[in-house]
Amino acid sequence: MLTMLKDGGVCSPKGFTACGWTAGIKASGNPDMALLKSEKAARCFAVFTTNKVKAAPVLYDKSVLEHAHFASAVIVNSGNANACTGPKGLEDSARTATLVEDLLGLAPKSVLVCSTGVIGHLMPMDKVEAAIPHLVEGLHADASKDFASAILTTDKVLKSLAIEIETAKGKVTVGGCCKGSGMIHPNMATMLAFITTDLGLPLDFFAEFRADISDSFNAITVDGDTSTNDTCILLANGVSGIQYEDLTLSEKSEFRAALMTVMKELAKDIARDGEGATKFIEIRVEKAESHADALKMARFIGTSNLAKCAMFGEDPNWGRILSSAGSSGVNMIAEQTDLYFGDVQVLSGGRPLECDQKKLEEVVKQREYKVTVVLNIGDAAASAYTCDLSYEYVKINAEYTT
Amino acid sequence: MLTMLKDGGVCSPKGFTACGWTAGIKASGNPDMALLKSEKAARCFAVFTTNKVKAAPVLYDKSVLEHAHFASAVIVNSGNANACTGPKGLEDSARTATLVEDLLGLAPKSVLVCSTGVIGHLMPMDKVEAAIPHLVEGLHADASKDFASAILTTDKVLKSLAIEIETAKGKVTVGGCCKGSGMIHPNMATMLAFITTDLGLPLDFFAEFRADISDSFNAITVDGDTSTNDTCILLANGVSGIQYEDLTLSEKSEFRAALMTVMKELAKDIARDGEGATKFIEIRVEKAESHADALKMARFIGTSNLAKCAMFGEDPNWGRILSSAGSSGVNMIAEQTDLYFGDVQVLSGGRPLECDQKKLEEVVKQREYKVTVVLNIGDAAASAYTCDLSYEYVKINAEYTT
Repeated sequence: MLTMLKDGGVCSPKGFTACGWTAGIKASGNPDMALLKSEKAARCFAVFTTNKVKAAPVLYDKSVLEHAHFASAVIVNSGNANACTGPKGLEDSARTATLVEDLLGLAPKSVLVCSTGVIGHLMPMDKVEAAIPHLVEGLHADASKDFASAILTTDKVLKSLAIEIETAKGKVTVGGCCKGSGMIHPNMATMLAFITTDLGLPLDFFAEFRADISDSFNAITVDGDTSTNDTCILLANGVSGIQYEDLTLSEKSEFRAALMTVMKELAKDIARDGEGATKFIEIRVEKAESHADALKMARFIGTSNLAKCAMFGEDPNWGRILSSAGSSGVNMIAEQTDLYFGDVQVLSGGRPLECDQKKLEEVVKQREYKVTVVLNIGDAAASAYTCDLSYEYVKINAEYTT
Repeated sequence: MLTMLKDGGVCSPKGFTACGWTAGIKASGNPDMALLKSEKAARCFAVFTTNKVKAAPVLYDKSVLEHAHFASAVIVNSGNANACTGPKGLEDSARTATLVEDLLGLAPKSVLVCSTGVIGHLMPMDKVEAAIPHLVEGLHADASKDFASAILTTDKVLKSLAIEIETAKGKVTVGGCCKGSGMIHPNMATMLAFITTDLGLPLDFFAEFRADISDSFNAITVDGDTSTNDTCILLANGVSGIQYEDLTLSEKSEFRAALMTVMKELAKDIARDGEGATKFIEIRVEKAESHADALKMARFIGTSNLAKCAMFGEDPNWGRILSSAGSSGVNMIAEQTDLYFGDVQVLSGGRPLECDQKKLEEVVKQREYKVTVVLNIGDAAASAYTCDLSYEYVKINAEYTT
C-alpha cells in the first residue's frame, strides 16, 4: 500500500537533511540556494540534458558520476544557470562542490552541483561562498519545504511529496521535489528533480530508473529537447537498513510503484504549474502500434500551440488535435480514429459526431481534463501531460531576464 | 534583371484571369470564394501537405494530378477546410470542380480545388453552387487582388506579387499569391500558395520547383509538419509563346531567380503576417556542416516559444537562441559558436561578449531584423523566417472557431 506522507519531500526518507538560504543571487530576494545531504554516501543515479549546449554544473556532475555512482550531497542554486560561462563556469561549479565537501568533511567528488536561472552570466561566487557555511550549519531533517522552495525560478507553487511503503523488513520511503515551469517541456526551461529514498539500491537499478523517467518527466518532454541544465538525480542511501535485493517480488513492485508515483506526480505538477497555465491536460493516445508511437504522438499534440490556445479558450477544437496527431509522424489512419474530450466522444472513424454540446462545454471548462485519441490500429497506449497557452505565458516570457 | 510589377499577382502573367466572390461561407461577410483560370490548359505542379489527415480537396487534387500534370483552373474557398468530412466531403470537392468545368466548357479533371478554414464541417454546397456562376462570369484579367483577398482567413494583409524578366524571345512573368497566418509554420494553420507563369515548363521542371519550395515555403515550415490542407500549386501556361527549353542558360537562371523570389517573398509575407506578429525575424545559420543541418537548426530556433516571446519582449535573449540551437539535434560545438543580433555580435566561441548594449537594444526594437548563429564547423548556410509570439496570437487562437 502506498501511503502519501503529509508535507513529504526529499527529507522524508531516513538519513536526509536539507537547508534553503537566500544568497542574493535572485534579484527578488527569495531563497536561491539549497543543500541536500545524506548521512552516508548514497547510491546516485542521474539523467542529464541531451542539449549540445550543457551548463557547467551538468558537465561537472557528469565528470563526478563517471567514476562512481555515489554522492553524499547536492548543492543547488536558482537565479543563475552557470551556462555559457566557459572554463571559469566549470571552475566555479567545482569550487562550490569543494567548499561543501570541506565544510562537511566529505570525500572529494562526493557533492553534486545544480544550477538554474539566466544563461551567460558568471556565478556571483562571493555570494555563493558566503552562503555555503549557512547552508551547512542550517541542515535539518524537517527541511523538505525549504529545499523545494529555494530551487524555484518562475514556478508559482512548490512541488514536493513523499510516499511510504511497508515491507516485511520495515518502512521504506521515497521522497522528491522538482522545479519546472517554462512551457512545461524542458526544451523551454530548466527542469531540476531530486528523488531520495532510504532503500539501498543496486547499481543495475539504473535501467529501471531510466525507464520510469520516460513515463514521468519525459512524458512532459518533447523528443529529447532539453534545456542547458536539465537534471534528475536519485539518491538512495539505504539508511532504512533495507536493500532492494532483500525485498520480495511484490515488495519490489510496490517500491517501483512508489518511485513511479513520486516521479509522475512531480512531472504532472510541473505541467500544472506551466508558466501562465490555467489548465492541466492529459493527452492520452490509445490503440497505437507501439508505446513509443503513442508517447510520441501524445507529446507532439501536447506541444501544439494551436491546440494549447484552444484549451485556454475552452474551445473543444478537435480539428487542431487531429491535425496535430496527423503531423506527428506516427502511423495512423484518419478514417479509423476516435477522439474524446473527457468521456464525451466527438469523433468516430475520423468523422465528427453529434455530441452533447453542453456536456462537452463542461469538460473543457474544467481546470483538469483528458483528451483521448484512439487510433484503433494496435494495442499500445501512453499519456503526455501539458498545460494551456495563455496571455500570461507570453507576458512571463517576454519580460523575463535576470 | 528582375522587375517587380506594381500590384502584381496571379493574373500578371499572360493568359490568366481570376475572380473573387462572397459566397457567405465565412460569418464575417468577407469574400470567401475565388477562381483562377488559364486561357489554355497549363502545366501544373503541386505540392501537398504531408499530414496523415488530408482534407478532401487535397485527396481530390492528388487524384487529378496522378494522371496528368495539367490544369486549367483552380477554385478556392476560405472559411471551411472540408477536412474530416468523409466520403461526402470528397464528393463535394469533386462536384465543385465539375460545376466549374461544365460552366467553363473544360475537360473533366482539369480543375483543382483548394479549401481553408474550420475542420469537420460539411461544405455548405448550396452557397458554393450559387457562387460558381458569379465566379465564372466575373473572371477578368485585373483580378490578382480580388483572388488574393478571397483566399484569406485570419491573415491581416493580402500577399501577392509578380516579377517580370526580359529574354531574347520576349517578356516572361511569374506571379503569385498565398494565405498563411497561424503561427507561421503550416503545422499550425493552412498555407495555400498559387504561382503562375506564362512561360512553358517541361515536366521535369518539377524537381526544380520542389527544391525552390524547400528554401521558401518550407523555410517557414518545421520538419514536414503541415496542416490538413496545405497546398502549393504552380501553373505554367506558356501563353508568352516561350518555352523554358528555348531560354539561354543565363535566362533560365534568371527565370529560376524570379520564381524563387516570388516564392520566398510570399513565404516571408506569411511570416510577417503571423497571427498577432509584431516582429519579422530571419534566423540565419552559417558555417554548418550541411545545408540540411543549417535549415533544420534555423527552423527549430524559429519555432521556439521562449525565443519568440523574447523577440516580442524586445529582449536580446541569446541564451534562449543558443539553447534552442543546442536541442535542434544538429551537430554543433558550443565553444565554437558565434551569435549576432543584426550586426551586433553577442557571443564569441560560446561566451558572451561585452557588446554595445545601446546598439543591441536598437536592433531588437526594429520591426524586422536578423539573428545569425555561426557554427564554425562547416561551410553551409540557410535561413528560416519567423515572427514573435504575442498576446494577440494567443487571443486569436483562443477565440478562433468558424
